[in-house]
Parts: sequence; C-alpha cells; structure tokens
Amino acid sequence: MVNINLEFIKELSKTTPSKIVLLVIDGMGGLPVCQSGKTELEAAFTPNLDTLAARSICGLSDPVSPGITPGSAPGHLALFGYDPVTYRIGRGALEAMGIDYPLQPGDIAARGNFCTIDKEGLVTDRRAGRVSTEQSSKLCKLLNNMDIDGVNILALPVKDHRMALVLRGDNLNHDITDSDPQQTGMAPLKVKANSPEAGKTADIVNEFLDRAKDILSGYSPANMLLLRGFDEKPQFPSVSEIYKLKPAAIASYPMYRGLARAVGMEILKTGPTMEDEMATLKQNYDKYDYFFIHIKETDARGEDGDFAAKVKALEHVDKVIPEITGLKPDVIIVAGDHSTPAMIKGHSWHPVPVLIYSEWCRPDNVNQFSESACICGGLGRISAKDIMPLAMANALKLNKYGA
Amino acid sequence: MVNINLEFIKELSKTTPSKIVLLVIDGMGGLPVCQSGKTELEAAFTPNLDTLAARSICGLSDPVSPGITPGSAPGHLALFGYDPVTYRIGRGALEAMGIDYPLQPGDIAARGNFCTIDKEGLVTDRRAGRVSTEQSSKLCKLLNNMDIDGVNILALPVKDHRMALVLRGDNLNHDITDSDPQQTGMAPLKVKANSPEAGKTADIVNEFLDRAKDILSGYSPANMLLLRGFDEKPQFPSVSEIYKLKPAAIASYPMYRGLARAVGMEILKTGPTMEDEMATLKQNYDKYDYFFIHIKETDARGEDGDFAAKVKALEHVDKVIPEITGLKPDVIIVAGDHSTPAMIKGHSWHPVPVLIYSEWCRPDNVNQFSESACICGGLGRISAKDIMPLAMANALKLNKYGA
Repeated sequence: MVNINLEFIKELSKTTPSKIVLLVIDGMGGLPVCQSGKTELEAAFTPNLDTLAARSICGLSDPVSPGITPGSAPGHLALFGYDPVTYRIGRGALEAMGIDYPLQPGDIAARGNFCTIDKEGLVTDRRAGRVSTEQSSKLCKLLNNMDIDGVNILALPVKDHRMALVLRGDNLNHDITDSDPQQTGMAPLKVKANSPEAGKTADIVNEFLDRAKDILSGYSPANMLLLRGFDEKPQFPSVSEIYKLKPAAIASYPMYRGLARAVGMEILKTGPTMEDEMATLKQNYDKYDYFFIHIKETDARGEDGDFAAKVKALEHVDKVIPEITGLKPDVIIVAGDHSTPAMIKGHSWHPVPVLIYSEWCRPDNVNQFSESACICGGLGRISAKDIMPLAMANALKLNKYGA
Repeated sequence: MVNINLEFIKELSKTTPSKIVLLVIDGMGGLPVCQSGKTELEAAFTPNLDTLAARSICGLSDPVSPGITPGSAPGHLALFGYDPVTYRIGRGALEAMGIDYPLQPGDIAARGNFCTIDKEGLVTDRRAGRVSTEQSSKLCKLLNNMDIDGVNILALPVKDHRMALVLRGDNLNHDITDSDPQQTGMAPLKVKANSPEAGKTADIVNEFLDRAKDILSGYSPANMLLLRGFDEKPQFPSVSEIYKLKPAAIASYPMYRGLARAVGMEILKTGPTMEDEMATLKQNYDKYDYFFIHIKETDARGEDGDFAAKVKALEHVDKVIPEITGLKPDVIIVAGDHSTPAMIKGHSWHPVPVLIYSEWCRPDNVNQFSESACICGGLGRISAKDIMPLAMANALKLNKYGA
C-alpha cells in the first residue's frame, strides 16, 4: 500500500459547502448463530439501511489491520482517518476523556483503582471488592483538588473501584512508572521517573500517594489507591487542520465525546437516546459541514452476549436512518468502529460492513447492508483509515494530486 | 500492508526471454449515467477485451490510494511500479517533458505563462488573453538560447500562453521561489533562493527576467513572463535497473513519452493513431521485452464530458486488441492511470478496471471487462503499484524471496 499520511491529505483538502455525515454504529459487525447462519445485522430487518446500501458503494473495513481487535480509541481514530498505530491514546488519558473531563495540553492523567491493603501495607485486593461508584466518589472527594508544589491534582470518580487522576501544572512529564504492582501480596510501588525530565512529576505523585494513604487509612474495604498508565493529553492534528472541515460530534456516551475532542471536534449537547441524537443533528445541521454521530446501544448488547437484543438495537438504528437521509447530506458514511459479536461478548477482529453514499460513489450490486453482502461491494476490503479520504473525495473536497 | 519497495523488487528480478505488454487506456474508468446505470466501459461493445478478461485475472486498482484523484504523472508512475507518493515529478519538469524536451540530469525547468503588465509593471492579465501558440512561439524565439554566467537558458513554447523554461549549466539548484504572483494588480516577483545553494540560480533567473522584460516590452498583449514550479529532472531508478527489462514506450502524446523517459524507457517513434501505435509495436516487437503503450483518446473524451464519444473511443481500443494478442506476449496488462468519468469531465478517484493475462494468471470468473464485473475479480481491489510486480511474476521474471 502506498504510504499516505495526514500531511498528504492536508495538502489536498479544501473547504466546500458540501456536508459529510459519519454514523458510527458501535460494534456493528457480528457473527452468525448456528441455527440460522445469520449474523445480527443479517437477522435484523433493516429496510432503510438496505435501500441506502443499494444507492451506495459498500465494503468491509478492517479497523486496524486484519486480525487486530481494536479498543474504542483506535477503532474511532481510524474512522476519523488517523492511522491508529501512529496515533495512540494512552490508558490514563482515555480514562479522563471517558468521563468527559476536558484534558488540557500539558495535563497528565492516570487510571486509578481503589484497593485494599493490610496492616503491613501489602495489597490484599486490587479492586477493594469492586467497591461501589457511590463509595469511590466519596473517597475521590477526600483526595480531590490537592496542591503539591504548585501542581493541582484532581481525583475523579469513574465507575465502581475505578477513578482517574489528573495532574495540572508546569513542566509535568508522563514518563513515569506505575504504582500498581498488578498482583496481591506486594506493597504499592513507588513511581519512578523513566527520564530525568520526569523526576519532578514522579516526586509529586509519590507525595500524593503518601498523603492518600494517610487520608484513606481509616476506611474499608477501600483504603488505598493504585495508579497506572500515566499519559498526556494526546496532541493530534485536528480534523479542521487536516480536512479543513468544521466538525461536530453527537454522542450520548462520554468516551466518544472524549475521542471526538481529541481530534478537535466541537461537542454538541445531546440526550441519551438515538432520537435525541438525531434531533441534535437536525438542529445543528446548518452550522457544520461534518458530523460524527455515535450509537452505543449495538455494542452494549453485543458485549452482553444478547444476540436478540443486538438485532433489536440494529433495527432501532434502521428506524432513525431517514432522519439522516432526509437532510440530504452530500456524503453519508455508515460504519462501525469494530465488530462486537454477541457470540464473543466483546470486541473482535472481524471486518465491519461500511457504506459510502454520494452522488459520485459509483454504486455496486450490493442491496443489503450486511457482512456477507458487503464482501462483494465495490469498496472491497478496505482499511478503515481510508474511509475518510473516500468521504472527502465523494464530497468533492480533495484536489487532484500531482500534475 | 507489507512495505515493498523498488530495492526489494530489484533484488528478485531477473532477465528472461518472456515479454510484457502494458496497455494504458488513459482515464478508462467511469461512472454510470442515470438512465442505464452503465458506465462508459459497460455501455461499450468490447468483445475482444471481454474475451481477454475471461482468460485473465481481473480487479480494480487504486492509482494512489482510495479517494485520491491522481494527475497523469502519479497515475503512470504507479503503473510502472513506482510509489507515486515517494516518486514525484514537479510541475516545471513535467511541462518540459510534456513537450518532449529531453531534460538532462542537473537541468532546472519551470512552467511559464506569457502575461500582460501595465506601465507601472503590474500584472493585468496572467495569461495575456490566452495568446495563441503561434504568437507565444515567436516570443519564445526572442528569449531562447540566452547565456547568463555560463548557463544556457531555453524558452520553449507549449500551448497558448504557456511555455517551459529550461536552465542548463553547472551547480544549478531548483530550490527557488516562483516569480508568478498568482494574481493581477501585483508586479512579477523577484525569485528568491530557499537555500544558500540556490543563490546563483535565483540570480540567473532574475537577470533573465529583467532581460525578458526589456525584450518583450514592445509587444502586446503578451509583454512579460511569469515563472513557477522550478524543478529538476527527476532522478528515478530506471525500469532496466529495477526490473532488468529492456523497455520501450509507444505513445502518440508527448507528455506520456516524457513520463516513460523519466523511468528510462526507450521512446519509439510512432504516429498519432492507435493503429500507428500498434504498427510500431509490431515493428519493434523483437527488440524489447517490455512495452508501454499509451492511448489518449479515452481520457480526452472523458474530459470533454462526452459519454457517447468515450464509449466510441473504448470500442476503438477494443478493435486494436487483437494486434496485441496476436503477438502472443507472455503477459498482457490492460490498465488505466485513473478514471475520467464523462459525468465529472475530469480525472477522478474511482478505482480502475485492470486485467493481467498470462498462462500463469489463475483466471477468475470475470468474463466482462468493466467496473462492476472487475469488483469480483481475483485481484480484488489493489494498489496500482502492485500491478508491475504481478506482471513480472506472471512473466516468471521474479526469483523466490527468502529461503
């Protein structure tokens, strides 16, 4: 494959009045159940998606590369056109983004676990019996907003025993080791700087952990904190820079707002349902030329392992499709960030159906939006990161390359 | 995708008596008209291409990468196996190549426009009313063959107001800015060196432009010259070096002879028609083991936006196919450098049908040479730069890689 990068696309992109809508059906791809031989998408009644597929060019997309099961971050970055192997978001930054916390450049974030330690200070339960969100929110309040050497430290609850730590101050550096020993029977580790520049940050984190130990010592079962995956806010070129678009994100789940924020999209306020998201699209349709709409339900039902519920979620998505097509965007992309087969109860490596609709798309013979039909689509089997340049081309937003 | 480069192919290639013919049908791919749903190629009656497709392996090729619309240079370099993002040809070099001027290593070329300036020296028309080729040829003669500090300067007419400037001498460097202000109401710019090594070249070009201003001052409407896109003759490894072939090019249009020259092919004299090109192939068939044949008509009719005329041009191509198959080359490739849908009246990003015929090609089920049929071909959707290694393999000209 020819080595195309974001700089290359940036050289060619131009602003035009045409509009692009990217609908991400999270975890869309699936696997057949034995009885019917049909995947979730094939079992679902999706007349609107099928009609759209007939007018579109279809294919199967590999989120990262054949065989690679992606997390949500690489799955989405690829759909935004960012090589998900080059552009990485660390665990800590993702944890903060996942609770909608707007990280600033220079902030350092880590993922934290409340844990249980014994009298000798050895970890007896890394998750403190999966202490409730309510309880860990209380503990976070005790630790929150500490100031050490001019660095502000935020302790933010996530879910159950999980929390996020954010350090904000000058000259911080994320190149430090974890305090989480990843096993019981050991004391929490002192964090260490991997480079001289990170020495100050390591000292501050160790001081914070000492204070946290004192503050939490009277509580049970959670009486200590383990930290891992220190990372900075990712500093990626923005969608506006690369594609010269005015992009907006509509996502009812915070994690996906965080991912959109990482590539500089504007985040639109929306409600929890698909219908809310479509209303948000309609209200803001005139103000932007690129919309990323995220649908979570399909992935959640796949993770549950509930085939029938995932079929139902897909049928629900199908019902809102006319809300998008009715606005007559120049380009519509329907894609998934990865497959989440109910049979696997988790993300998988299977390529995901994708369609690109535009007046200029050269439709193929696919008239059903499904895994097996998309195999014969005109896009063939493509890398997810090539979808965005194709959308730009179909919106007539890319200049010719070379004389 | 695995990172294959020309060095890798060079290590594996070997000379054998087998022969490869690459037929490039310029701008071959198209888009359907609404009524029939058929593209130009699908509407055309092409029994010879269809028969060949049935005996070949077929697919769709992306000239550069999905979504990228290529110019002629990257479109052809990819078909010659050169990564079109790595191997670039600048505007100036291409302009000189486009008039069949044989640039030498070290030569610097620029694209020029005759323009109109007013009494204050400000540009009033960047194209001097698109002055005739005849007139700009006369003006070029006035400027041609100037000697400044031992550098020979050639002013070569191209078409209408366009011309090419070539500098030949020692220690020239193309890293200088344009004199073209790209807008009216401004004076032509002094060119500037972007690096110290280019200082001498900038001085010479400025001196040339001063003299040109004096020489042209009595003329109208063209009384000045604007220059842009300074570039050197591209220094690419040659087809003979990489593939150990003895390559010949048959192209009735100078631009494509220039591109073939850039990769070291021998240029065969031919006439203006497809039949002339086929006669040239026949006459020279014994002397070379690789032939690049270029057909321009299809692209020109696509650029005109004339669907019916493009269909006719494709049918014309089909009629000469037996002239190629009759010679029984070991490998025949029929490809396009890009799509030029009549609907778009220009180059586009759509992938292009391609077939590779050989005794060893493992034919697929495609028996029609068209966009929709080739989707299901055994080549799938491939990068154009992979076509040449496939042709070499099918000609049994590549050794095994690794033990």
